[in-house]
Amino acid sequence: MIDSSLGQRASENLKKVREKKPLIHNITNYVVMNYTANALLACGASPVMAHAAEEVEEMVSLAGALVLNIGTLTPQWVEAMLRAGKKANALKVPIVLDPVGSGATRLRTDSAKRLTRELSIQVVRGNASEVLSLAEKEGRTKGVDSVHSVEEAEESAIALAKDLKTTLAITGKVDLVTDGKRIRRVHNGHEMMGMVTGTGCTATVMIGAFLAVDPDPVEATATALAYFGLAGERAAAQTTTPGTYQISLLDALFSIDEKELRKAAKIEVVR
Amino acid sequence: MIDSSLGQRASENLKKVREKKPLIHNITNYVVMNYTANALLACGASPVMAHAAEEVEEMVSLAGALVLNIGTLTPQWVEAMLRAGKKANALKVPIVLDPVGSGATRLRTDSAKRLTRELSIQVVRGNASEVLSLAEKEGRTKGVDSVHSVEEAEESAIALAKDLKTTLAITGKVDLVTDGKRIRRVHNGHEMMGMVTGTGCTATVMIGAFLAVDPDPVEATATALAYFGLAGERAAAQTTTPGTYQISLLDALFSIDEKELRKAAKIEVVR
Amino acid sequence: MIDSSLGQRASENLKKVREKKPLIHNITNYVVMNYTANALLACGASPVMAHAAEEVEEMVSLAGALVLNIGTLTPQWVEAMLRAGKKANALKVPIVLDPVGSGATRLRTDSAKRLTRELSIQVVRGNASEVLSLAEKEGRTKGVDSVHSVEEAEESAIALAKDLKTTLAITGKVDLVTDGKRIRRVHNGHEMMGMVTGTGCTATVMIGAFLAVDPDPVEATATALAYFGLAGERAAAQTTTPGTYQISLLDALFSIDEKELRKAAKIEVVR
Repeated sequence: MIDSSLGQRASENLKKVREKKPLIHNITNYVVMNYTANALLACGASPVMAHAAEEVEEMVSLAGALVLNIGTLTPQWVEAMLRAGKKANALKVPIVLDPVGSGATRLRTDSAKRLTRELSIQVVRGNASEVLSLAEKEGRTKGVDSVHSVEEAEESAIALAKDLKTTLAITGKVDLVTDGKRIRRVHNGHEMMGMVTGTGCTATVMIGAFLAVDPDPVEATATALAYFGLAGERAAAQTTTPGTYQISLLDALFSIDEKELRKAAKIEVVR
Repeated sequence: MIDSSLGQRASENLKKVREKKPLIHNITNYVVMNYTANALLACGASPVMAHAAEEVEEMVSLAGALVLNIGTLTPQWVEAMLRAGKKANALKVPIVLDPVGSGATRLRTDSAKRLTRELSIQVVRGNASEVLSLAEKEGRTKGVDSVHSVEEAEESAIALAKDLKTTLAITGKVDLVTDGKRIRRVHNGHEMMGMVTGTGCTATVMIGAFLAVDPDPVEATATALAYFGLAGERAAAQTTTPGTYQISLLDALFSIDEKELRKAAKIEVVR
Repeated sequence: MIDSSLGQRASENLKKVREKKPLIHNITNYVVMNYTANALLACGASPVMAHAAEEVEEMVSLAGALVLNIGTLTPQWVEAMLRAGKKANALKVPIVLDPVGSGATRLRTDSAKRLTRELSIQVVRGNASEVLSLAEKEGRTKGVDSVHSVEEAEESAIALAKDLKTTLAITGKVDLVTDGKRIRRVHNGHEMMGMVTGTGCTATVMIGAFLAVDPDPVEATATALAYFGLAGERAAAQTTTPGTYQISLLDALFSIDEKELRKAAKIEVVR
């Protein structure tokens, strides 16, 4: 059942982002830097991209949230992420991690695991295989290849969230958010979102923006995903082709008003 | 004369790309990463950008084709390209090289030559000066500055393709494809394509996508260029300004259907 | 009062850019590389992005102007900027610097100062806090935080331009251009420009394009900002949402004709 109080919370979070314009510090991949910066501007936040080890600690000190994204990582970038992350932890700046491609190569899997081990990360967002690849030992949670249904992914995610002591968001047709105790399912979104590169990464920066104004990782994440999913729906009402869709999605992030989000957010409280 | 069987082959290749959704591994320049990823998605393929030496071998093992593009190269990136390329060769994953700016600086010319020398590259695509700069010795093929006509470029390209034992694609008003024996001319395209950055690089990734489903480098390249050129024509029917054109081109890649391509492909078999 | 002779000069500069198509060499940040390349193409110039220390000297030798932008800098990139810049100085290729984020971290402030100290830079463009952070000693010019009005920023900028022996452009609601003696205010522009990432960086590359055809840094900068501001106005007449605006801005750069610019340029000669 859709929880209307979370629609209200989504609306309030969006309002706060637009009023406070939090600085979101991104250490992210080259492919999406421009798009996620524009998405953050469109939702009302202030993006900054900075990855030099020499400056990330200073930069994150100015930020409302830190986004770490390993989409085009190198070992040097991972070091910068750790440095920024440790400073963020010391300053209580929330961190959201996007483990792009974790599970596909050892560098990605090892780097994502190292980040979750050495940092206190508030939220990890990815698709099912990326998120579930973070399990320290195979078998402790079910391996990626053995997950055949949404229900199995949900069970694995709950166990993993407890292990990692973080909030996990698995986005897909229905988005799952869990900290191991609470479970939210977000029913907003549109399949066209998969036709534009970096929409997953954009979901992650939206979580960053909402985390900067809402300290509860589960509710910040669920409400951010409802907002982003609604933008995906609105854009799909404008166009059926991917070039135009990419632009309409930015327009929708800007245009959605807070009342509209309150009514259209479809966040289910499973427990 | 336009060869209708190659129109048919273009149509079949596009169908295969959309059905198989081959993973295309790109080690490419920063400027076009987002655009070429979106173009690959729009045509039906799956893009991944990964350049860390530590992971390129694993990544290319998952790929249907490898795209190497030296548009914003450094020596470190060239090392990663060689590492990925050697693995691709061992696994028979086809490689397409875009020697962006070869001929303009020694680093670019030397790097492009080194890649063609140390790897077995199936297709090289560039403009005339970039492609012809790959000749090992000046004078063996005519130097870039001495090429004053399409016919001369064609002669030089044929000789160079034999020398390099690869397929060369020189794109321009008419695209030339040759492996030193066979010659194809592709008459699709539109001059507005030159007003958007990275359209050449996008032509290259389209060749990558088609190579992943058609093992003949000459026909895969000619059909990919016909498809991409047709998208350029379709986009030019929508708009006369470059910002909108960039978006319309992505839309067209997505919207062109296979029958349409079969009829509109203009591939000439010269020999 | 608006100076109509500078409207005429803006028109002539735009015409020259479109006729000569100067190559603009950019060592710039990852976020805006694609957008600024497209903006340069849209205005008629030819962009190239190249940052490898091994090739920047050769590349800048081919260029009509060099753009240095520290938006995602590392110490290695700063070295490449210095190398390119010294060659540019030797060859009298004009340089424009965009000190993105100077004042926010030591790396950025120190790097921007080092570039202005070790190179002869023709124009520096940024917002007020970025530009004024370049003052060598606090107190010599008023510190950033103590600048509360446009008038104070203007006084500080005049003093700093004299100190640095360069032309400074502070863009905002009204753009200020000064070499310490002459002062221009540019009244073109639209607030929506702030809703797209990299519009400041795009203003900087427009200055680069105009510097390549107009050797007077003050007038090249003022006319480039009038042109870019007018494009911002034209785009705002097309749309009120930021995704579409980003595209319309490129379209406007392309579509503005020289007569239109002559009439609509609003450049004020203060002294």
